[in-house]
Amino acid sequence: MADYGRKRFEDLLCRVEFMKALRFESHQLKLAEIPEPNEESEAVVRVLKSGICNTDIEIVKGYANFQGTIGHEFVGIVEAAVAAPNLVGKRVVGEINAGCEKCDFCLSGDARHCPQRTVLGIVGRDGAHAEFLSLPTGNLFEVPFEISDTQAVFVEPLAAAFGITEQVEISPETRVAIVGDGKLGNLCAQSLALKSRNVFLIGKHLEKLNLVEKRNIETVLLENAKKLNKVFDIVVEASGTETGFNLALDLLKPRGKLILKSTFHGAAKWQAWRVVVDEITIVGSRCGRFAPALELLKNNSVDVEGLVNEELSLRDGVKALNVAKQKGVMKVILSMTN
Amino acid sequence: MADYGRKRFEDLLCRVEFMKALRFESHQLKLAEIPEPNEESEAVVRVLKSGICNTDIEIVKGYANFQGTIGHEFVGIVEAAVAAPNLVGKRVVGEINAGCEKCDFCLSGDARHCPQRTVLGIVGRDGAHAEFLSLPTGNLFEVPFEISDTQAVFVEPLAAAFGITEQVEISPETRVAIVGDGKLGNLCAQSLALKSRNVFLIGKHLEKLNLVEKRNIETVLLENAKKLNKVFDIVVEASGTETGFNLALDLLKPRGKLILKSTFHGAAKWQAWRVVVDEITIVGSRCGRFAPALELLKNNSVDVEGLVNEELSLRDGVKALNVAKQKGVMKVILSMTN
Repeated sequence: MADYGRKRFEDLLCRVEFMKALRFESHQLKLAEIPEPNEESEAVVRVLKSGICNTDIEIVKGYANFQGTIGHEFVGIVEAAVAAPNLVGKRVVGEINAGCEKCDFCLSGDARHCPQRTVLGIVGRDGAHAEFLSLPTGNLFEVPFEISDTQAVFVEPLAAAFGITEQVEISPETRVAIVGDGKLGNLCAQSLALKSRNVFLIGKHLEKLNLVEKRNIETVLLENAKKLNKVFDIVVEASGTETGFNLALDLLKPRGKLILKSTFHGAAKWQAWRVVVDEITIVGSRCGRFAPALELLKNNSVDVEGLVNEELSLRDGVKALNVAKQKGVMKVILSMTN
Repeated sequence: MADYGRKRFEDLLCRVEFMKALRFESHQLKLAEIPEPNEESEAVVRVLKSGICNTDIEIVKGYANFQGTIGHEFVGIVEAAVAAPNLVGKRVVGEINAGCEKCDFCLSGDARHCPQRTVLGIVGRDGAHAEFLSLPTGNLFEVPFEISDTQAVFVEPLAAAFGITEQVEISPETRVAIVGDGKLGNLCAQSLALKSRNVFLIGKHLEKLNLVEKRNIETVLLENAKKLNKVFDIVVEASGTETGFNLALDLLKPRGKLILKSTFHGAAKWQAWRVVVDEITIVGSRCGRFAPALELLKNNSVDVEGLVNEELSLRDGVKALNVAKQKGVMKVILSMTN
């Protein structure tokens, strides 16, 4: 089996000159030749589809000082895996944090906070908008046949949304609001509505709010949100704006919990005294676990395909990023197979 | 018994014309005649001593738009208590939040977040820098004889410091840092050191840091705090500054907890993305319970008398507030009996 893994990997290297990736280098985004994989010890995945995330757009603006292939949401086929040859040929998604395997976080089975970690397409590791990528075998999760390629691309952001339920307790009676009707807000609303009967999605765009209508979620246009002051136990800030953060504070009951999901870059202003007086808890929330997200998609508990506006070829990657930036666009998918 | 309570109350009213209070009115702080107590149903307390808190200083700058008698840290003797005559003659301290007694918070026995609450010397209720004050009888706690008047004045801020242990779990191994060596930081360090063997107090002033030396607390000058990046499970921000808040973020391990204890007024800047990436939890923390704080003082578990710089007569109240504002001053006490 090990030899089989080795053979596939070498076959792949022979083909490498033809492979492309969407790279951000020297302040420029371009389709470029892919470099050889870093380590033989990692699995090599032929990417089928990838998803464009806001973080990709932020990186192109300079966030995280990242240089290399961008993208971290993907589904692909394992082409080589010297350390775990049984993975070869499997359709997989992958957790994006790769740890040192030595620190306390890694030893406890959670590389998400390893101080030495690399992060696919974000920190020190080439990403997923590419014909292939490499990741440690332990990061990969086989995708059940019930989940389509497009659905599988959403495992990473859905895991991030559903990860909130690992951090705060949500019961059927818990009153939850999500501020922001973009794709992150949508996935948070859908996944938290599986735990609570009292989920409200607040946003500016009627057409985006309507996407969750069938999911037992109350939708509220921003201009009507004032009526809901101090009625929520939990508010998820998923708009990534100062205004959204301040609205979240308005909506929370005293001793409520504000889940900070979206990153505002640069310095934002806040009225810290309000957090003290109302004894609010703010919970920073980044990545979630893949296994529960795969389960949700397998059972059709969450609709993700409705979020896709467009699917473009990797060849049109630069254009795709521009489409993703446009107002009203939820999700743009890149395909490596057409 | 009820008649006895009534009689003392009426005696007191006869004497009211001679009584004074330190009042903030029309943007001016002055010693003025005290108004009659608001409600016969409340207990009337003859104040023995009161303590000047930073919040008093902030109120005089305009915080909370408060008008009336300032002050919320006190010890006194109950002079009248129609609803609970057995309290008359007792030496007491008092919880500062007075609730509506009807809302969910009040019905659960915790008026600290009642939306209709008044707060002694802070919101809609005359305060403690006065010859007498009134509070609901349920707010009062008898002071054990082992506790001196000066110590008793610290029950309110000590309760606020020790209240942190109600909000986050602290074990002997938990690594805790407190940023800010003022009186709040000092009380937080002393009370959290009763739970953890790993408490660090970080501040700018060697002489203030030295005050906790005997309390099994590591002290660190601010300029040396950089060495402690990402090593703490819990950091208490008690400096009330943007710099202190950002230092607190630097000191925390990923998934650490930042206790926001001190109120920055106005808008502060923060890098919210750091809270998301490191999945930090920020816990706003205001008032604590009085019973555990009384227990700490009774058992001499915390030294508060070492924090007193000066004791002045209520007559010199305006001057006392100016003394309290001076650099290096920890606590100024007002005495109503000299």
